Amino acid sequence: MLPRVDERQQRLAELIVGYGVDLRQGQDLLLVSSTANLELARAVGVEAYRRGARFVDLMLGDDQLKRARVQHASEDDLRYLPPAQAERYLHIGREHGARISIQPHFAPGALSDLDPARAGLDGYPGSDALHEVINLRTTNWCVIPGPTPAWAEAVFPGEDDAYEKLWEQMAWVCRLDSADPPAAWRERMDALDAVAKRLTERRFDAVHFEGPGTDLTVGLFPSSLWRSARTTTVDGHVYQANLPSEELTSTPDPLRVDGVVRSTKPLELSGTLIEGLVVRFEGGRAVQIDADRGAEALRANAARDEGASRLGEVALVDREGRIGQTGTVFLNTLLDENAASHVALGSAYLDLVEEESDRGRANESAIHIDFMIGSDEISVTGVTTGGERVPVLRDGTWQL
Amino acid sequence: MLPRVDERQQRLAELIVGYGVDLRQGQDLLLVSSTANLELARAVGVEAYRRGARFVDLMLGDDQLKRARVQHASEDDLRYLPPAQAERYLHIGREHGARISIQPHFAPGALSDLDPARAGLDGYPGSDALHEVINLRTTNWCVIPGPTPAWAEAVFPGEDDAYEKLWEQMAWVCRLDSADPPAAWRERMDALDAVAKRLTERRFDAVHFEGPGTDLTVGLFPSSLWRSARTTTVDGHVYQANLPSEELTSTPDPLRVDGVVRSTKPLELSGTLIEGLVVRFEGGRAVQIDADRGAEALRANAARDEGASRLGEVALVDREGRIGQTGTVFLNTLLDENAASHVALGSAYLDLVEEESDRGRANESAIHIDFMIGSDEISVTGVTTGGERVPVLRDGTWQL
Repeated sequence: MLPRVDERQQRLAELIVGYGVDLRQGQDLLLVSSTANLELARAVGVEAYRRGARFVDLMLGDDQLKRARVQHASEDDLRYLPPAQAERYLHIGREHGARISIQPHFAPGALSDLDPARAGLDGYPGSDALHEVINLRTTNWCVIPGPTPAWAEAVFPGEDDAYEKLWEQMAWVCRLDSADPPAAWRERMDALDAVAKRLTERRFDAVHFEGPGTDLTVGLFPSSLWRSARTTTVDGHVYQANLPSEELTSTPDPLRVDGVVRSTKPLELSGTLIEGLVVRFEGGRAVQIDADRGAEALRANAARDEGASRLGEVALVDREGRIGQTGTVFLNTLLDENAASHVALGSAYLDLVEEESDRGRANESAIHIDFMIGSDEISVTGVTTGGERVPVLRDGTWQL
Repeated sequence: MLPRVDERQQRLAELIVGYGVDLRQGQDLLLVSSTANLELARAVGVEAYRRGARFVDLMLGDDQLKRARVQHASEDDLRYLPPAQAERYLHIGREHGARISIQPHFAPGALSDLDPARAGLDGYPGSDALHEVINLRTTNWCVIPGPTPAWAEAVFPGEDDAYEKLWEQMAWVCRLDSADPPAAWRERMDALDAVAKRLTERRFDAVHFEGPGTDLTVGLFPSSLWRSARTTTVDGHVYQANLPSEELTSTPDPLRVDGVVRSTKPLELSGTLIEGLVVRFEGGRAVQIDADRGAEALRANAARDEGASRLGEVALVDREGRIGQTGTVFLNTLLDENAASHVALGSAYLDLVEEESDRGRANESAIHIDFMIGSDEISVTGVTTGGERVPVLRDGTWQL
């Protein structure tokens, strides 16, 4: 079994470095991973040097160090990150470097027995600087999943071949089964971008989500754009920010979000599992956050700063995507968000707002936390400024 | 076997954190290790959080990433380290934090098949800032060895129980066999510091090393001090900078070193093994560096800056030390230097010079590379300003 996994790691590493960020000669690479994914991180780093990286900065999260910090540090100390932590992110922004994040940074539920409010205070291996750097649009970056035995056990509990099964599904949803995975991804992105173009042209004033436990209206700016995960830097460097990705994303108006959303999938937040999440919005603000389990971790994050309780992203996912087809709950936002339509609390993607006047109103925060609102049971309707209601997604199929 | 190793790792971690750096509540810890020593690094980090560390900054070297960089990067790129690399060291200096370095950062000989001159250009996971920070005397730091299977195989090639054997010797030389290892270390340091006091009081003008292949005179400043590895920060925080350590160290006059020194042990330099090293000094400068193997790696380092070809340290080791008693060549400077008297090219320890006027003449460099000149066959003689010759070490026994 190990040689097969190694070969998949190598193929995944080549896809991420060669297609995902499309690393160029002389670029610096910030490589964020879990110690549990050291082998994959190493394969990615070696591949980066092969392609001419100048320096690979390896930043590792570790379940046991995280646990020890959350258990023992004072609240003030938990909030603390040294200046170099931000600098490692800012450097990549200044130098027009690349960033690869192999997720999860911690095993799902690794901190479930600890105080979720305290767990939510420790930002490592992230940084408040991350979204600032993303919005400079100077970095080609890519977030990818990396299977680990602990993660596999959480997804397929008690199954002997859990790790192998997770790798099989991962290889399939990453389209590694294709003879030419980059070509397969270009084809899928072309199809999604064609829908994105039509969505953008409609200039909807809002999108309305309806389904079991959910009745949420998310306002859009007049110049909000829709886009796939394939995008470009200010230098015109084309990259795919998430791998896999099946979503179309836009930036909402953070003051015009109203209603209730029930998350259709568990949310894994830095080692805390949040289940049965229900969030109520009024005037754009998340005024109530409840869950069957782990709500405190999201509440702590949402209280982080002014924008942390408002939306920075709205995203739509169709049923053609491979992730939804697996039927698996991966307990991993990167994957689960691409099985279903979703929203994110926190920092907005400014490149999804065309006009400067609107861009200044997009949400700002140190956090960016996605949670799922969709499944094929959820219908998505576009609402025009004139109040006309236009079907967008029904049974997971595009209506325009 | 594994549970025994785990228990030793835990005991070693407690010794390093609790006695080596004697970590205090609220301190930040820079923890530098190899990925091959991740388990020990984790035990150290967890122990640090238990003792109230504010943040543990884990910095990892990795054989395969290093190899890939040395193989593929241009010479200019190889010399490059991002600003955050220095910042992570400088931060600890500014904040009066702690630093623990688990060595080796790369398996002995991991780069032996690559160009040693190129290998010598890549400073990661070190930094030019390191010796600047050490000389601020604001940090409590400790360098320790961490056994790995690859290192054990290099030390005991072909032996089935190499890893276990290396751990056994490591546990013994670290005095983990003692019921109270910190107490055992305090006793040994007290004994060494008593000799150091007598050596300092003699105010030798130079020390003269004589033995097979070696005839070297190393000049001292009028106010050069001798000291064990136990020392204090500017805050009066007592720590032991190396564990294990059996040496008495002083800072030489970088302009008054003359003669030839033949290294009695192989020198492991960032993955390159240097064997049969012979260095000739004239007027303080290393004017000729030869070796049976790997000389280029040391030459590249010695050409790094003005002070890199001059001495920053001279150290004496007696035969009472446990490392020499093992008879093992550990292929690791931290251990091998404590089996034998040695000198170091590069940065000097300013706290080993009492007078400001002398301190300004101590050597400055971005490097600090120890290599062995002693064994029990080497005699060490103190030379007074009047030319009197006073025996210091004969057959590894102190003569004063």
